[in-house]
Amino acid sequence: MDLKKMVLEKAKSAKDASYKLLHVTTEKKNEALKLIADELEKSRQEIKAINEKDLENGKKKKLSSAFIDRLTLSDKRIDTMIKNCHDVAKLKDPVGEVTKEWTVPSGLKITKRRMPLGVVGIIFESRPNVCIEASTLTLKSGNSVILRGGSDAINSNIFVAGLIKNGIKKAGLPGGAVEIIEETDRKTILHLVKIKQFVDVIIPRGGLELIRFVEENSVIPVIRHDLGVCHVYVDKEADIDMAVKIAFNSKVQRPGVCNAMETLLVHKDVIDAFMPKIAAEYKKAGVELRACPEIKRAAGLMSIYDAGLKDAGEEDWEKEYLDLILAVKSVGSAEEAIEHINNHGSHHTDSIVTGNAETAEKFLAGVDSGSVMVNASTRFSDGNEYGLGAEMGISNQKLHVRGPMALEGLTSEKFVIYGTGQVRE
Amino acid sequence: MDLKKMVLEKAKSAKDASYKLLHVTTEKKNEALKLIADELEKSRQEIKAINEKDLENGKKKKLSSAFIDRLTLSDKRIDTMIKNCHDVAKLKDPVGEVTKEWTVPSGLKITKRRMPLGVVGIIFESRPNVCIEASTLTLKSGNSVILRGGSDAINSNIFVAGLIKNGIKKAGLPGGAVEIIEETDRKTILHLVKIKQFVDVIIPRGGLELIRFVEENSVIPVIRHDLGVCHVYVDKEADIDMAVKIAFNSKVQRPGVCNAMETLLVHKDVIDAFMPKIAAEYKKAGVELRACPEIKRAAGLMSIYDAGLKDAGEEDWEKEYLDLILAVKSVGSAEEAIEHINNHGSHHTDSIVTGNAETAEKFLAGVDSGSVMVNASTRFSDGNEYGLGAEMGISNQKLHVRGPMALEGLTSEKFVIYGTGQVRE
Repeated sequence: MDLKKMVLEKAKSAKDASYKLLHVTTEKKNEALKLIADELEKSRQEIKAINEKDLENGKKKKLSSAFIDRLTLSDKRIDTMIKNCHDVAKLKDPVGEVTKEWTVPSGLKITKRRMPLGVVGIIFESRPNVCIEASTLTLKSGNSVILRGGSDAINSNIFVAGLIKNGIKKAGLPGGAVEIIEETDRKTILHLVKIKQFVDVIIPRGGLELIRFVEENSVIPVIRHDLGVCHVYVDKEADIDMAVKIAFNSKVQRPGVCNAMETLLVHKDVIDAFMPKIAAEYKKAGVELRACPEIKRAAGLMSIYDAGLKDAGEEDWEKEYLDLILAVKSVGSAEEAIEHINNHGSHHTDSIVTGNAETAEKFLAGVDSGSVMVNASTRFSDGNEYGLGAEMGISNQKLHVRGPMALEGLTSEKFVIYGTGQVRE
Repeated sequence: MDLKKMVLEKAKSAKDASYKLLHVTTEKKNEALKLIADELEKSRQEIKAINEKDLENGKKKKLSSAFIDRLTLSDKRIDTMIKNCHDVAKLKDPVGEVTKEWTVPSGLKITKRRMPLGVVGIIFESRPNVCIEASTLTLKSGNSVILRGGSDAINSNIFVAGLIKNGIKKAGLPGGAVEIIEETDRKTILHLVKIKQFVDVIIPRGGLELIRFVEENSVIPVIRHDLGVCHVYVDKEADIDMAVKIAFNSKVQRPGVCNAMETLLVHKDVIDAFMPKIAAEYKKAGVELRACPEIKRAAGLMSIYDAGLKDAGEEDWEKEYLDLILAVKSVGSAEEAIEHINNHGSHHTDSIVTGNAETAEKFLAGVDSGSVMVNASTRFSDGNEYGLGAEMGISNQKLHVRGPMALEGLTSEKFVIYGTGQVRE
């Protein structure tokens, strides 16, 4: 098969559909989302049977149990996929929103109006539920999507994408609104990221190696979600009990995700008051600490922690452990904390604990991250927790969209100009 | 010299300065802009003397007179540069603007706040005034800029950039806010577009060849301004006199720029009423027409135009003539016009002339361009005409910013979250 031609045809079909979607009402899009939910419900047994093929292949390939878990479409996961369709149907349609309008001296009325991006290429790895998560958001925001999943879930992906297409067609919308690349040869990624005449944005979802590969090769703009090296900074004016709660929750509540804290910064004036308290909690939870010398000297800390208290090396300040390991560093001021975060973090999510509003504002303005917080756990950095209703991913970059992205991130604003016959002198 | 190391050092300096700029007040930035204007005024004679070197080199290289004109810093151009500084000082500072805020059930207050992008890399060709146009906008929006100009204006660029740095430093701001790459070896571009740890966006300003080179090689997001294949569509319900005025102005008022019309689409029902009138005007202005057969059959058209009326080939529908040449095509409906524009245009600026509001809305929603207009000349597609106060360029892409971009396009929104000790369950 000519892979390049195949990918090009899928992209062309998605582009053609995207132009048709510009004229589709919100009601029609919601109807399609409900019809997709119906298709999933009706085909529940078939989904599981086909998913079983991928699971068997995975077991033959001796994939890890965590990997097999991500591949699995259980009844509970299918329930979530169905709920996802209904939830997205309830969200506000961003398309057509007039974000600004004004009139200029020539008499032209200038408006900025939110419109779909067009065609979104999603390149993902194991989880077949991404097919639903991505398609529902792109459809609601008037975009076409091209799904390019990994080989481990390919049977599930193809089947689920087929169900989505059925739902879309039953609603009278163009089937090209959701296309799936059925071949998993890596060359299909290389072809996809070059078709800038038909594809408007590429969103890689997966490990760092995939993201770097896409970033290096794409001529299409990429929305990138890579590392989450998140910080909590305990200021000298922090409420110590609040700081203990937030530092504990940010690290321990779910350590394997991108919005978990990886480095704790502590103002030197509160080391003695704060460290023994948090260390006692961390010890119970089995957290390994890697600390700078000032932290290690904290009153009573060595007697609480012994083997679990290690020396931090320079490399620890940039590590995304995704595990019960934490780097801890003393800083002399909020400014030093900000500087450390900007130079060593990943511009994802960083939080300050302080009772001083001025220090808080300095931190919120100065820390260059997608999400900055005061007196809250970094674990809140999430589309659902922010009330976006869903999440397409979390952007680590600064162009177009920062932090958790959902429907609005899948649109951009164009200028719509109303004249009465004006010409330029 | 180690070019790679040199570019890296400039980028690092710009990044460090960008973090300092996050804490600078609007008043301070405006003071710096005024001090830059003073530097330009004070050094007027020197600017012209140094510019003379570039002009002499250009003449030796036998550059075209149009090229030499673009290189020239006359008193009038210096006046404009000075005015530019004062104008940008008057613009509203976009930094810190809260664009949205809401409270979620956890009690967190979620806000979206406009912040600088960080470091902007501008890669430009001949015009040394770009140094001022770019630096004033980046400074006002709290960004650092790295200027990488072409060899033909390098003496002027270095001198003007030095004046800008003087003004910035006199205001007490970090000089790294404006860096210039003094070497013009093309490798410096290749190095610059790879430094993603320090540079947040690349804006190429110049010919297609430069833009393609940047786009192919950059791992940093690019804001691209390439082709302007703009359309006017004369609908069957157009006011014919208004259509003549708009079609004439869009083509003839300044044919060599990106927002000039390149293809005129005419509804078949008004060919006979419209074409002879506009053709008479075009003929007086010396416009060559390349038309489809239906247009050529228009009543009386051949008698007005003879040698100047040519057959359009397929390639004419995608040409950016930048000259007194126009492709003209008959279409059967507004839908056909929209389809033609989306498939053959460059997503820059397209206008419909019609008296029917419903048809207008269909066109405005369906045409996938940065600027869409009803009953106005495409020549209005410009940051100043839109009241943005200035223009960094016109974006042809859909991510981040579409159409004319100024201060707001040099910022993006981050999430700023206010808690009272919340942790996740």
